Amino acid sequence: MTSPVFSGLYRPSLALLTDLYQLTMAYGYWKRGLHEREAVFHLYFRRAPFEGGYAVAAGLALAIDYLENLRFAAEDIAYLAGLTGSQGARLFPDDFLAYLGKLKFTCDVDAVAEGTVVFGNEPLVRVQGPLLQAQLVETALLTIINFQTLIATKAARIRDAAGPHDTVLEFGLRRAQGPDGGLGASRAAYLGGADATSNVLAGRLYGIPVRGTHAHSWVQAFGDESQAFAAYADAFPDDSVFLVDTYDTLDGVRHAIAVALDMRQRGHELGGIRLDSGDLAYLSQEARKLLDTAGLENVRIVASNDLEETLIASLKQQGARIDTWGVGTQLVTAYDQPALGGVYKLAALRTANSQGWDFTLKLSEQQAKTSIPGILQVRRYLGDQGQPRADMIYNIAAPTPLPAAPTILDPADATRRRPVRPSAPFRDLLSPVLRQGQLVQPLPTLAESRVFARQEVNSLDASIRRFLNPHVYPVGLEQGLHEFRTQLMLAKRPVRLA
Amino acid sequence: MTSPVFSGLYRPSLALLTDLYQLTMAYGYWKRGLHEREAVFHLYFRRAPFEGGYAVAAGLALAIDYLENLRFAAEDIAYLAGLTGSQGARLFPDDFLAYLGKLKFTCDVDAVAEGTVVFGNEPLVRVQGPLLQAQLVETALLTIINFQTLIATKAARIRDAAGPHDTVLEFGLRRAQGPDGGLGASRAAYLGGADATSNVLAGRLYGIPVRGTHAHSWVQAFGDESQAFAAYADAFPDDSVFLVDTYDTLDGVRHAIAVALDMRQRGHELGGIRLDSGDLAYLSQEARKLLDTAGLENVRIVASNDLEETLIASLKQQGARIDTWGVGTQLVTAYDQPALGGVYKLAALRTANSQGWDFTLKLSEQQAKTSIPGILQVRRYLGDQGQPRADMIYNIAAPTPLPAAPTILDPADATRRRPVRPSAPFRDLLSPVLRQGQLVQPLPTLAESRVFARQEVNSLDASIRRFLNPHVYPVGLEQGLHEFRTQLMLAKRPVRLA
Repeated sequence: MTSPVFSGLYRPSLALLTDLYQLTMAYGYWKRGLHEREAVFHLYFRRAPFEGGYAVAAGLALAIDYLENLRFAAEDIAYLAGLTGSQGARLFPDDFLAYLGKLKFTCDVDAVAEGTVVFGNEPLVRVQGPLLQAQLVETALLTIINFQTLIATKAARIRDAAGPHDTVLEFGLRRAQGPDGGLGASRAAYLGGADATSNVLAGRLYGIPVRGTHAHSWVQAFGDESQAFAAYADAFPDDSVFLVDTYDTLDGVRHAIAVALDMRQRGHELGGIRLDSGDLAYLSQEARKLLDTAGLENVRIVASNDLEETLIASLKQQGARIDTWGVGTQLVTAYDQPALGGVYKLAALRTANSQGWDFTLKLSEQQAKTSIPGILQVRRYLGDQGQPRADMIYNIAAPTPLPAAPTILDPADATRRRPVRPSAPFRDLLSPVLRQGQLVQPLPTLAESRVFARQEVNSLDASIRRFLNPHVYPVGLEQGLHEFRTQLMLAKRPVRLA
Repeated sequence: MTSPVFSGLYRPSLALLTDLYQLTMAYGYWKRGLHEREAVFHLYFRRAPFEGGYAVAAGLALAIDYLENLRFAAEDIAYLAGLTGSQGARLFPDDFLAYLGKLKFTCDVDAVAEGTVVFGNEPLVRVQGPLLQAQLVETALLTIINFQTLIATKAARIRDAAGPHDTVLEFGLRRAQGPDGGLGASRAAYLGGADATSNVLAGRLYGIPVRGTHAHSWVQAFGDESQAFAAYADAFPDDSVFLVDTYDTLDGVRHAIAVALDMRQRGHELGGIRLDSGDLAYLSQEARKLLDTAGLENVRIVASNDLEETLIASLKQQGARIDTWGVGTQLVTAYDQPALGGVYKLAALRTANSQGWDFTLKLSEQQAKTSIPGILQVRRYLGDQGQPRADMIYNIAAPTPLPAAPTILDPADATRRRPVRPSAPFRDLLSPVLRQGQLVQPLPTLAESRVFARQEVNSLDASIRRFLNPHVYPVGLEQGLHEFRTQLMLAKRPVRLA
């Protein structure tokens, strides 16, 4: 047994990145001859994270990479062949494992583009194809999309707090949830609005700009702060940011100024100073005064120390003189809500004669957890300026066509109805990504998705973007879908006398 | 630019799993000729997570795997050669990159064994060797040890809540922080006390038992719950656990019972039922009654739905009839505190003449954040039953030898002193792991560390293990170390007139 740091030391292992029950169900379907029955699953979350008004969809490129490369390697099959049940018998017979060994992912996938602003109950990914395959990929799709969407959304909020002109640096790797927790967070944080990362591997793999200067230990190693700054400036004369709080912050600023003036004599300018503890509002104001008095108006002030969107907003409101925000733990772990509760639900299954669809439902004691049957699409109606006005979830396989002027119903309160004006412009959010497992067209680059994400967030009204009690963006079911779902719920609920 | 799901698609990439500042500092040290100066760093956290009384050290085997395999591949070097500074010039010159390209990790590492119960300020890992190398590995060591220790501790708490006889299953992969967030969590959860995981890849890579049966979608696919259960029992006659809440929980239990009785006719027994929503106390009691009345006393009741230690304790206190606890999101993300704030601090540096040591300190406005100078060891004094009584942090390189009966001082309040009785038994927690980069002896297996972790937690008094306001286990500095540190702090603090 090796002890790899990473699961992904080689690609075939990814096929086993799943819950065992996906494989036991796969065997069950295969045994029944149901494995190729066409099925439709939707991936969605129920509530935007952080008690916020929206989320930024992310992770699709990683998910597609996983799907395109889904193969069970010989070692994977050998491992599965060794699994036994409670009576000591093998869990999976050879003929099923032979089937798995040849499996490729051949489903159709439609999805919302990375960077799209999305809301609760809206499918981000729709998988349509053989039941066994479409079920099998549930766990990995959720792991990838849940985490990427969570962190991209957190980053978008932090970007909003910092404003469009400040720099946001992500440097959370050391506190991330494992190596790939950090790597994935760097990717999603950049997509959601960070400008750069400290994570060199993220820089190399994803092309994210990397940034970083020195730690407290650098200053400790020299003992004397001025000597430490001078030594750093000697190594990076045009790229120095001095960390000034190893011993005493304002003394540190004074030492940085002395070295900066010395650098100027040699034709170089200090890039910035970094505050990493204490009262950042006060210290940044004092540091700014000291720097400006010394003629160092262009030296930037970087701040870090458990920053997140509400703290950044508060510091700005207090008049902190901070130009660059270094965010770590709070961003990369989404500290105040470290998981997005995305789910993946079966919504349609071909009838036995393959002609029609059975639309399926999971009930729940909690109305919000009851799933939505159908083959779903999200239509976003737009205002005059192209701003989102309301979203409608509808069934593209409904027996009756969509009315020209449909009505949207709030699934939590069906008396809240919103008729759509007849000529309202719209766009449908889900687009074809894979057809029979093949990429329809290249996906956008991460940098492109990042630009798109910012456009998307900027298109939302400030009331939806605010952190405290945001306005609820209207999302509902198309009336026909609502009525169909209600009928299905009534049919599935047991009759209990009161 | 590829878009890998994992960072670790091949091993050389791990060298770049670091913050850029580790590399800029490395260059700075190299340029000054300080790169081979012998340095000592300690990795420690300041407070146990979850407002708890202890933590379970974890991650060492992964960290050692990283260190032993630390190499910069040609692609890594090529990437670093392409990095430029603000003026467009290259950040790193070729001769430095050539040095990096040949680098191997040759430090000594001493560490606390995985599974050891640890407390704030105690070094878990000590790295001693060339300054450049010892600094370079900071980020990855922190990422690995922080996350593993966090989740192992959470799992230990959940195990304590479930008690020694119940089964604890970890199935959080879908809500984990990325693929390796899930994989790492499965490893640490098992180490900390979980019995099995749903994560098949964790099963394959780490030898953890895997478990799982079916999802709601299985029931939906058959439409009829009884048919779905019967089909599952057909595929896994001796390993079935039926999920009973797709439509209505108690109806689901009745359907499960009917199928179970049918199974019995064929010589098989139903393993269990799973409750995944609703009032788990009430539903488990009602389900137990229905099962027992039908003569199915051995059918286990599995419960899941956002469970964590306080909820499990509450359900037990309410008399819930649950045998197996399925824990996901709350465990694998450590939801209530998703990051452990471990740090890695320089504590000693050889003097320029290589004869002695400069013991170094990082000050802070917050006393708790001031580092501890020296080359540190942790001595755990034990009671008559071998139970931990107090821990003493001391400097093995102190100028004066440790007194036969030392005194331990609380670093937060030096008037709290605890003299050690002269013949008190003890053990030192840090042991040699690497010498000049080579493994001293094989590390324990994960299964061995898991047994050790349980012994360790069981050795703690219940007052330290409780969830609410736990008793504070005494950890302090050896008096000589405390006095030396105080002198160093006074020397480094600027004199400010009041």
